[in-house]
Amino acid sequence: MNQNKQAPIGVFDSGVGGLTVAREIMRNLPSERIVYFGDTARVPYGSKSKEIVLKYSRQIVRFLQTQNVKAIVVACNTASAMALETIREEIDIPIIGVVKPGAKVAAQTTRNKKIGLIGTRGTVKSELYPAIIHEYDPQIQVIGQACPLLVPLVEEGWLKDEVTVEVAKRYLNPLLEQGVDTLILGCTHYPLLRSLMRQVAGDGVTLVNPAYETAQALRELLKEHGIENDGHEEEEFPYRFYVSDAEERFQEFAGSILPYDVRMTKQINIEEY
Amino acid sequence: MNQNKQAPIGVFDSGVGGLTVAREIMRNLPSERIVYFGDTARVPYGSKSKEIVLKYSRQIVRFLQTQNVKAIVVACNTASAMALETIREEIDIPIIGVVKPGAKVAAQTTRNKKIGLIGTRGTVKSELYPAIIHEYDPQIQVIGQACPLLVPLVEEGWLKDEVTVEVAKRYLNPLLEQGVDTLILGCTHYPLLRSLMRQVAGDGVTLVNPAYETAQALRELLKEHGIENDGHEEEEFPYRFYVSDAEERFQEFAGSILPYDVRMTKQINIEEY
Repeated sequence: MNQNKQAPIGVFDSGVGGLTVAREIMRNLPSERIVYFGDTARVPYGSKSKEIVLKYSRQIVRFLQTQNVKAIVVACNTASAMALETIREEIDIPIIGVVKPGAKVAAQTTRNKKIGLIGTRGTVKSELYPAIIHEYDPQIQVIGQACPLLVPLVEEGWLKDEVTVEVAKRYLNPLLEQGVDTLILGCTHYPLLRSLMRQVAGDGVTLVNPAYETAQALRELLKEHGIENDGHEEEEFPYRFYVSDAEERFQEFAGSILPYDVRMTKQINIEEY
Repeated sequence: MNQNKQAPIGVFDSGVGGLTVAREIMRNLPSERIVYFGDTARVPYGSKSKEIVLKYSRQIVRFLQTQNVKAIVVACNTASAMALETIREEIDIPIIGVVKPGAKVAAQTTRNKKIGLIGTRGTVKSELYPAIIHEYDPQIQVIGQACPLLVPLVEEGWLKDEVTVEVAKRYLNPLLEQGVDTLILGCTHYPLLRSLMRQVAGDGVTLVNPAYETAQALRELLKEHGIENDGHEEEEFPYRFYVSDAEERFQEFAGSILPYDVRMTKQINIEEY
């Protein structure tokens, strides 16, 4: 247990997607420092098995612990679904994922008890979102839809493109036809498609952004453990970024979604952890 | 050097794409046995660095050597571009990739000396296709276009979908406007889009399929080394498939593109090699 309040928060994802979670933490918890790890050498996790995702997540957690983090945010839906509960038993610092905060708010939001869930194949198949939602209300119906094309579209930068609109319609229509009134953006890339999703889903559907909800849950978690950063120590690099491959492309993508230049990016060999 | 003519050919790819190469070998060299390895745990290679692709390729070659293959086909454009030449120096069995056979035929095909090349970011950036084409004719202009959305579209099964047509147009139009008369399908998934590409590119453009050309080059290579399989030994499983993760999805995809049931699929831990 690292009781040092000035210690950073460890945030990790299979690649760049988790930066939307880091961005919400920066916006909502501006005194906290962050060490971000993006597993760009082994991305994507969405199509991998539970066993592999657990193995990779354990390596990343070991790396983050070498950075003396005081808490860990699993900013990856697949890893939250497949590895979080196991890893929580294995470490002594607080750890949260993006699934529970999003699931909780969705359960509290729906009026007609029909929630749509979009994400990677792995996240949708894992059934973890329905399991958590049913803890709040077993009557709620969760309708999942895997959307494997959306991540490549975001990474191609086609955030408002007509092709992306058409693909989003293809994926969302079955959910809309079934009358969902709440839609979980169950992949960390999807907040970047929020305005497009709003357009396709229409005003009758509430969008739940797990990245934002996770930042709120992190605030609670830090308070609960008494480890919020109360210091105002000025630091040159409050945010540090590590990747397992191709730091240039990471830096480019990060620069396009974060509100400042991402200067501190370093490549490490994650398989050594 | 394995002089056993009955020994299998090792074929590998970052995932399922190389199955189009295996398929051409099955069609064109029906007496040859195949051991296929798909690195489904670490797919895709296209966005990874040269260093990582070389490391992964070396592991796979070591695995294939444990299967006593007599020759190796690198059925992955990225690995052919980034790792083949280095590995050729390190092993004592013949090895070929998919780049050179496709590049050679493209160089021989073009009349106006303008060749279009589509592929992943890694393949296009590597500049290996232009380098080989220029060995045949330095006057030829090679215009590359990375198409990161096409692999996910193929894997989603949208082979004739209007969205895929629109995406293909977006990628091909700049090449067509520059007047290419030859187009290299520089990614092993793309042969599955051949009829769609034909429709988008029009009749004036010759499509080069490196999968087919590689099977022809393999025939020559085996002849040259005197190791063609001349036996007609009946074997229950002439084709064996290994993957590093998620064999079910592999088997499903393989079943959809190969002309028979893929029964012999086994998952191995490639990081042990």
